[in-house]
Amino acid sequence: MKSATEYLTFNTSEREEFVCITGEVAALVERSGIQEGFCLVSAMHITAAVYVNDLEYGLIEDIKEWLRGLAPTKDYRHHRTGEDNGEAHLKNLILHHQVVLPITSGRLDLGPWQQVFYAEFDGRRRKRVVVKAIGE
Amino acid sequence: MKSATEYLTFNTSEREEFVCITGEVAALVERSGIQEGFCLVSAMHITAAVYVNDLEYGLIEDIKEWLRGLAPTKDYRHHRTGEDNGEAHLKNLILHHQVVLPITSGRLDLGPWQQVFYAEFDGRRRKRVVVKAIGE
Amino acid sequence: MKSATEYLTFNTSEREEFVCITGEVAALVERSGIQEGFCLVSAMHITAAVYVNDLEYGLIEDIKEWLRGLAPTKDYRHHRTGEDNGEAHLKNLILHHQVVLPITSGRLDLGPWQQVFYAEFDGRRRKRVVVKAIGE
Repeated sequence: MKSATEYLTFNTSEREEFVCITGEVAALVERSGIQEGFCLVSAMHITAAVYVNDLEYGLIEDIKEWLRGLAPTKDYRHHRTGEDNGEAHLKNLILHHQVVLPITSGRLDLGPWQQVFYAEFDGRRRKRVVVKAIGE
Repeated sequence: MKSATEYLTFNTSEREEFVCITGEVAALVERSGIQEGFCLVSAMHITAAVYVNDLEYGLIEDIKEWLRGLAPTKDYRHHRTGEDNGEAHLKNLILHHQVVLPITSGRLDLGPWQQVFYAEFDGRRRKRVVVKAIGE
Repeated sequence: MKSATEYLTFNTSEREEFVCITGEVAALVERSGIQEGFCLVSAMHITAAVYVNDLEYGLIEDIKEWLRGLAPTKDYRHHRTGEDNGEAHLKNLILHHQVVLPITSGRLDLGPWQQVFYAEFDGRRRKRVVVKAIGE
């Protein structure tokens, strides 16, 4: 079995910002030399998500607006700790913090429109994603 | 390490249709000869999901109605591209596009009521799911 | 390739109860001897979830209240079968029933605030989670 692990670092200029990371993930898979396996892409934070969907900027704004409706800014119990990011935790839970991608014949085995995104909900500071491939 | 990869093809007669695929996934696991490992079941599209829950037809209708409430049909920014399926993208995000299932002693290690579903939100055309098992 | 599989059993005193299981999962990873790999943590039921987020009790109450809003108690079609837990199925779908965690240098490779939770939505009876690690 082979494995490869890398960490992507983000420091977004906006509090909420989505970044397409398909290229970085595909490059790691290529460097790993793994022909058949899985690649895990997982946010290491509790206020950021990783998801797979379309690289279409209108849709990305639709997703942000939709999440604001499902997880509104309000006075959460969590804010008694001094935090102000309750809604960012809930958005993380809706989108999920990780995806597992198939590697087939040495490449990410995604559909034609599938792109991997890092979704930041409490940015403007250094945050990380772990990308880990295993296989042979 | 062993691996096995197959693609399931769907062309649903309804725009929105849920299909139980536990049997197909279990058959691939058996053919793979893998005794201990993981099986990834992942939609290759951005308007379809894969999830695990109950094979109970009332509940399936409950899930469809619930998703219509959380991701209503409306005039999304995404529709400026000519698409009309914004809500299908959001439903994909709620249910998630993939699951990873354990393989133990050569079989899918699911609970007694757990079934694997393909959830189509923009059907009536050919779409695919990748099923990939790795292990030994 | 190595693998290790264990089952955690829960019998919560409340119908809805969240349990932090990071310690149990980390202990299995250590016992497995796996240095590089993945660890799947998956509820074996359709009315319980597994998720990763913060061990902060105010936030946990926020999550429960938020889920009650998104998946309210009501007269679901599913209840015609004699069940009364329709909302528990929907909460399972939002949070998702499983996570895949990276194992790096023999340890769970989580961020500093990431904790693994079992989220019970229809408890007061014996239920199980499968924890399975593969790698080398």
